[in-house]
Amino acid sequence: MSTPNTPDLMQKIVSLCKRRGFVFQSSEIYGGLKSAYDYGPLGAELKRNIMTEWWKDMVHGRENVVGIDASIIMHPRVWEASGHLSGFSDPLVDCKVCKERFRADKAPRAEPGQALTLTYADKGAAKVAEELIAKQFEVTLTRDGKDLKGAVAGDRGYVCPVCGSPFLSDERQFNLMFKSSIGPVDPLGAVAAAIEAGTLGGLTGRELRSAIEEITKPTAVYLRPETAQAMFVQFLNVQQSMSMKVPFGIAQMGKSFRNEITVEHFIFRSCEFEQMEMEFFCEPGTDDEWMDFWCKARMEWWQRYANEPGKFRFRAHDKSELAHYAKGCFDIEYDYPWGWGELEGIANRTDYDLKKHAQYSGAKIDYFDPTTQKRFVPYVIEPAAGATRGLLVYLIDAYHEEEVNGETRVVLRFHPRLAPIKVAVLPLVKKEGMPEIARDLVNAFLKRGINAKYDEQHAIGKRYRRHDEIGTPWCLTVDGESATDGTVTLRDRDTMEQRRISIAGAVDEIEALLRA
Amino acid sequence: MSTPNTPDLMQKIVSLCKRRGFVFQSSEIYGGLKSAYDYGPLGAELKRNIMTEWWKDMVHGRENVVGIDASIIMHPRVWEASGHLSGFSDPLVDCKVCKERFRADKAPRAEPGQALTLTYADKGAAKVAEELIAKQFEVTLTRDGKDLKGAVAGDRGYVCPVCGSPFLSDERQFNLMFKSSIGPVDPLGAVAAAIEAGTLGGLTGRELRSAIEEITKPTAVYLRPETAQAMFVQFLNVQQSMSMKVPFGIAQMGKSFRNEITVEHFIFRSCEFEQMEMEFFCEPGTDDEWMDFWCKARMEWWQRYANEPGKFRFRAHDKSELAHYAKGCFDIEYDYPWGWGELEGIANRTDYDLKKHAQYSGAKIDYFDPTTQKRFVPYVIEPAAGATRGLLVYLIDAYHEEEVNGETRVVLRFHPRLAPIKVAVLPLVKKEGMPEIARDLVNAFLKRGINAKYDEQHAIGKRYRRHDEIGTPWCLTVDGESATDGTVTLRDRDTMEQRRISIAGAVDEIEALLRA
Repeated sequence: MSTPNTPDLMQKIVSLCKRRGFVFQSSEIYGGLKSAYDYGPLGAELKRNIMTEWWKDMVHGRENVVGIDASIIMHPRVWEASGHLSGFSDPLVDCKVCKERFRADKAPRAEPGQALTLTYADKGAAKVAEELIAKQFEVTLTRDGKDLKGAVAGDRGYVCPVCGSPFLSDERQFNLMFKSSIGPVDPLGAVAAAIEAGTLGGLTGRELRSAIEEITKPTAVYLRPETAQAMFVQFLNVQQSMSMKVPFGIAQMGKSFRNEITVEHFIFRSCEFEQMEMEFFCEPGTDDEWMDFWCKARMEWWQRYANEPGKFRFRAHDKSELAHYAKGCFDIEYDYPWGWGELEGIANRTDYDLKKHAQYSGAKIDYFDPTTQKRFVPYVIEPAAGATRGLLVYLIDAYHEEEVNGETRVVLRFHPRLAPIKVAVLPLVKKEGMPEIARDLVNAFLKRGINAKYDEQHAIGKRYRRHDEIGTPWCLTVDGESATDGTVTLRDRDTMEQRRISIAGAVDEIEALLRA
Repeated sequence: MSTPNTPDLMQKIVSLCKRRGFVFQSSEIYGGLKSAYDYGPLGAELKRNIMTEWWKDMVHGRENVVGIDASIIMHPRVWEASGHLSGFSDPLVDCKVCKERFRADKAPRAEPGQALTLTYADKGAAKVAEELIAKQFEVTLTRDGKDLKGAVAGDRGYVCPVCGSPFLSDERQFNLMFKSSIGPVDPLGAVAAAIEAGTLGGLTGRELRSAIEEITKPTAVYLRPETAQAMFVQFLNVQQSMSMKVPFGIAQMGKSFRNEITVEHFIFRSCEFEQMEMEFFCEPGTDDEWMDFWCKARMEWWQRYANEPGKFRFRAHDKSELAHYAKGCFDIEYDYPWGWGELEGIANRTDYDLKKHAQYSGAKIDYFDPTTQKRFVPYVIEPAAGATRGLLVYLIDAYHEEEVNGETRVVLRFHPRLAPIKVAVLPLVKKEGMPEIARDLVNAFLKRGINAKYDEQHAIGKRYRRHDEIGTPWCLTVDGESATDGTVTLRDRDTMEQRRISIAGAVDEIEALLRA
């Protein structure tokens, strides 16, 4: 077994994803939309399988966890209470020369006074840069008498990531939530009306911007940037309707949206993505134990489906990284082709969120323990996993190339429970009753809830290779003997070994392998 | 069996949904958000089950259908091509007296000249109305000499639905798509900058509104108002990557968003909802046959899970209702407590969408049939079902009240495959090893993919009633004999009959009942 963890691994995966119907660029015929992706027939199945396994493990498999499915557009006050409206932002800067807009915290570092090399492809930009350098020269000359002929880095500590210029706009905070408007109103029409009515007259700069914001505020709504808040906001409804006793958890899977400035690495960071989050409510004082519990449980879950469990690790957040409300946080990281990166974060959010929502909503949010007669606001341990990233991780983990008879075999070694198709049923030829036997067998699998596919296109060897490449763990081939002796050939994806099994027992046999 | 199809049925269902954790108002502690709903622990399971059954039937169960899962935010040109940007709108009107904003096409009718009674709770509004009536009187007097002392309906043909006034603003088209902005830009800041720069100076009315629209346009994106367009936009990618041969279908389930002016009937019409749509591509000339095929298949599917199949019917759209591109359309309607209403629409969309996207994107979208050597743009039959509405329909269909021993038993008679919990495993008492046997049994079910729940709270009779009310088809009770003779009591939700079955065979027995 050999994983080509080479620089072109991602390129191979992206290419296979498009060629075989896992992931397409969204709106591709229109040139695509910034880092948005659509899941094709096999990608949709793979994502469903990952999320279903998570749901079975986290919700069905646990007496003390229930699931919810909340709306993506929530009341805007939710985001005031959670701090997302004021704090969920990145520092944005514009380069005055090349006009690039970039994140200050991700820009190339440069010491104040450090000499810089600016690079421009077109003359216009070079001229602007020259003028600015000349200006800086004068200013610097006046200020401290130093003879600086070129551009030097300023006090910012960073320069433009595209042209290297130190001529930058002020930093401004850019909120990452997608904003929209609800109700039969026209926010831009309201702004137009205010202009006509003269109510914006005389305002400039920040005042003007704030006045416009106020006009649109009454109907402003946001796409959730995380699924977590719904579990806090619905804590009382869930606890009471389901008679849950602390400690218990509320889980949710679904889409979240972030207007990311920097999108990167295929589906790793995109503006629309899927999460699998659980908020586990426990008594203060027991939170450290539960933190340990969930860290172990979640790591075990990710490794369970992986060929290389060694490529997952924990990374503790140090104090400077921690959100101000968090008592502790561990990331589960994966060794992506570009290095270690986040896959899931497990945070001790304390009682911060429930208290904030109690404060902002006026609702009394706490829990009375009937056994201990104590009333308290629960602490929260949150395992927050990326479903979209999970899909990427298992694609990378599954991708293998190997030499077979002088040819390169590409095989996706998915865990059988994640594989888009579990069994391909292949008639050796399209006659002599073989298609009928094969289709009956497919239906028997489907009846048992196992996704099987009938496939009669091309020669049998080519069909095996195609199913290797999309990760189908087992092929069943119906041949001339099948009608007479009631057997088919079972071919294993990983070992490529073949053996005869009975048609009557095929579904049971595959089901046993799947549940193993 | 008796369904109380009474005026308060909806009220009972809404109340049960909150009490038992099926559906909560979204952001309820903040006073809720216009018609947005969250699915609680049982509602989330019910919705998942409905959608999983659809996926199994439409995608897994058919050789000629594959699924996709596309992004909610698509390229804005998609909505230009589809006609949603220009045409997906409702006519909006403001009442000049009470300030109500309403849909002209849903307002109360009134013949021109018909005498009206206006009703106002506060004096201010009444005064405004009086002044307007006086004005109208003069105008009317001048125009045709009639002596009209009160308000009369104008030429509009409708009046304000709240106060009855005929004093209305012009109609304006209100687009139902939720609009947002993508990328590191601040559309309101751009408007502010334009005001400061004076580029909006002198503009008024529509011109000003259009100029502001133009400023925000380069980064405008929309939340999809239907899932269907992704199947057209990705037609080529899916057809080629999966080697699909026409006729074939592409299916998708997921959220869609419409900024509805009128929301009504609990989850029936809301701004955020889930759809289950399939686009079936076929050769022109075969479309009528396929239309018949899908109408039958879809009706059969809805009825399969219903207690009362007679409450579903077809309704053909007449010509005036048809979208301009549609050749024909049938609604599958359900007899809701407030009357017949839409549940699914099955439309013959012809080659309209593929041709539009080819035109707008410049891509060559067609199909070459290798057998007939013909090249053509496929016709499309679209069965478009509401998943959220399906959940409502099956809740209504399931809700029953009946007298049992002088008490009212509420029971949700869900089809077992839709029921949130399939089996409740109940230890008669919390001792003598019964909890251990019960928990082992729960795990055996979970291992087979059957959602079972352990439940030890309250007396056994109360537990039965609770599971009746949430629609659990089977209860298994572990009692004193279970440890010695290896049997448990199987209690049926609908008949309330009890019989002993063996623990060892329990999972097989329930699985057989589920698959029946």
